[in-house]
Amino acid sequence: MPSISHKGALMPESPIRKLVPYAENAKKNGTKVYHLNIGQPDIKTPQVALDAVKNNTIEVLSYARSEGSEEYRTKLSAYYQKNNIQVSPNNIIATTGGSEALLFTIGSITDPGDEIIIPEPFYANYNGFSTASGVKVVPVISKIEDNFALPKIEDLEKLISPKTKAILICNPGNPTGYLYSKEEIEKLKKIVLKHNLFLIADEVYREFAYDGHTHHSVMSEVGLEEHAIMIDSVSKRYSMCGARIGCIVSKNTEFINTAIKFAQARLSPPTYALLASEAALETPQSYFDDVIEEYVERRNTLISELEKIDGVKVANPKGAFYCVAELPVNDTDDFAQWILEKFNHQNETVMVAPASGFYSTAGEGKNQVRIAYVLNKKDLIRCVEILKIALEQYPN
Amino acid sequence: MPSISHKGALMPESPIRKLVPYAENAKKNGTKVYHLNIGQPDIKTPQVALDAVKNNTIEVLSYARSEGSEEYRTKLSAYYQKNNIQVSPNNIIATTGGSEALLFTIGSITDPGDEIIIPEPFYANYNGFSTASGVKVVPVISKIEDNFALPKIEDLEKLISPKTKAILICNPGNPTGYLYSKEEIEKLKKIVLKHNLFLIADEVYREFAYDGHTHHSVMSEVGLEEHAIMIDSVSKRYSMCGARIGCIVSKNTEFINTAIKFAQARLSPPTYALLASEAALETPQSYFDDVIEEYVERRNTLISELEKIDGVKVANPKGAFYCVAELPVNDTDDFAQWILEKFNHQNETVMVAPASGFYSTAGEGKNQVRIAYVLNKKDLIRCVEILKIALEQYPN
Repeated sequence: MPSISHKGALMPESPIRKLVPYAENAKKNGTKVYHLNIGQPDIKTPQVALDAVKNNTIEVLSYARSEGSEEYRTKLSAYYQKNNIQVSPNNIIATTGGSEALLFTIGSITDPGDEIIIPEPFYANYNGFSTASGVKVVPVISKIEDNFALPKIEDLEKLISPKTKAILICNPGNPTGYLYSKEEIEKLKKIVLKHNLFLIADEVYREFAYDGHTHHSVMSEVGLEEHAIMIDSVSKRYSMCGARIGCIVSKNTEFINTAIKFAQARLSPPTYALLASEAALETPQSYFDDVIEEYVERRNTLISELEKIDGVKVANPKGAFYCVAELPVNDTDDFAQWILEKFNHQNETVMVAPASGFYSTAGEGKNQVRIAYVLNKKDLIRCVEILKIALEQYPN
Repeated sequence: MPSISHKGALMPESPIRKLVPYAENAKKNGTKVYHLNIGQPDIKTPQVALDAVKNNTIEVLSYARSEGSEEYRTKLSAYYQKNNIQVSPNNIIATTGGSEALLFTIGSITDPGDEIIIPEPFYANYNGFSTASGVKVVPVISKIEDNFALPKIEDLEKLISPKTKAILICNPGNPTGYLYSKEEIEKLKKIVLKHNLFLIADEVYREFAYDGHTHHSVMSEVGLEEHAIMIDSVSKRYSMCGARIGCIVSKNTEFINTAIKFAQARLSPPTYALLASEAALETPQSYFDDVIEEYVERRNTLISELEKIDGVKVANPKGAFYCVAELPVNDTDDFAQWILEKFNHQNETVMVAPASGFYSTAGEGKNQVRIAYVLNKKDLIRCVEILKIALEQYPN
């Protein structure tokens, strides 16, 4: 039998993959499972986007342009300009989700054996895309005590080697909910300029900045034009994760021309989803106002309920819709499985994401979980109640 | 300025990319350009697929399951069984187009520096996916005189090295239109078993087999279960290139479990397109009968018209909707540009794909073009007329 590749063997599993059968089993046994484990919001997709697809007049479902139509990229650049990000349509490549944007970016700037520095905990699939490209993730630990702020810049700088090609941040952060300050972005700017690196910012949660804080894009930093690469997506902004439309944005022409070759090889982003994404740009501000208000209330509810539990420590997220909580257990992989497999309260239980999958350093995050506040407040209160009772009964 | 990767620099451009500005310019100057250069059919997408999307009731456009829903894969396996390919839902991973199916496959079975043997001329993007994975394409030349049949198996076997991981064929072939016989598939089977390789077959043109010939899938070969990987797509079968839904099919469990990790990292194929693809499985046989009849007539028209031109040699395709023609010129890259840039006949011209981009061996195919017969017969006749006049006037 021919064997799979080393790379294939190294590809990480999704951190929640091994929990899925336990969740399915619980459901089969009549237990309701609340899903706090995945960033799939329950928020309705903007009607204008749904309607664009329902009312489409396509007769031959043809390829779209590899980088997205001129029209779409023009409208997208207008959206960015409204968000204080001055870019032109030629700075943009439409991709199949933020996932593909990251994959093309990593392919364009790294060769096998190269390194990318990422503050951890980080979005688990950064590991997957890096492994698929033969690239080594070099983590720098951020701490729950600091709300997962940018680690000391000297700690980060120490990790830079001749193989380092980029620093990658997620802002606001998944799984941390941390929103980087302008000062932090400028510290990163100084470092990437000094060491001639790319600064990749995954800004797919841009709209989700709370408590009057402003989101600072790497694209708005003067002097960073040749270094900054922004990853974006319609998935979270418009609650249309299933569209699979994202984009790469950069003013570095050589980089964009390289990434376009990756885009050409796969021909085209999905045409129906492009229709929806273009229409979604007409979403009224009131939609976002309502969504942000809802998420702030959810966050406040979740955090205040979690803080009532003895031994639970929780970072206070300023953005996105996740928080990382430390639980009074030794191994959240075991706890997350136990709560699905052996526990229920009045036939209900919850699924959370053990945080170890969001760390690259072995052994880190073993007592943490990521909770996505993608459910309504009533359900969130019930979820925390279930967690509390489960923690009391958990034998390990 | 930070530099792009070696890999990024090596990524090939699409063979027709450099012609696009000339085509756009010609159009701006009022010249009608017939597109014979791309496999984008003018055939209507099945109504049942279009309707499924128009009548969708989605309110939250959510992620689909990474490998496609159980239901979709079950229906897909029923379709394969009807086509004499005995596979189960667990042998299938839904992907974002055949492109992603190839990318995940190459990632799962090769490491940087490994080799894949491909009969050339071959689908140009095989080069792109291989380069993106750091893999070397080792070509074995097939000849227009043989209609691009499988080269002598001894010639192919000579190229196998310790780094060879797979042989990749496209059946029926893009750009050749060649349909492999059962005997040829069995020759390949013998070789991959002997050398313990994977046999990857891109079978996206399965339905397009003409003149009473039958398509033979690698998936139907007894004894090849652990070696055979099929790449498929809805793009050509249902004329829905813009859906971006394909799949990987294999009975090799270790391979499938590896490829699924790549699928999980990118979360999900596009949800709307999955709706369309699932509904498309209900397409009545009459749709295919009509489409095949249309393509056979187009092919017959194209070939007989081309053969009337002095100095043109053309392979007779038994499948897909392409043919490779040898023109009485030294450099079809130059000719293809000239016919767009400097020529028109009654304000009309044609765009063809120079064949050099479909070869990996430098200098091969310089006097060949790929013609996609994706236009109606009347237009095809006019296209060949334009080509004939252009060849008479072409100065080089």
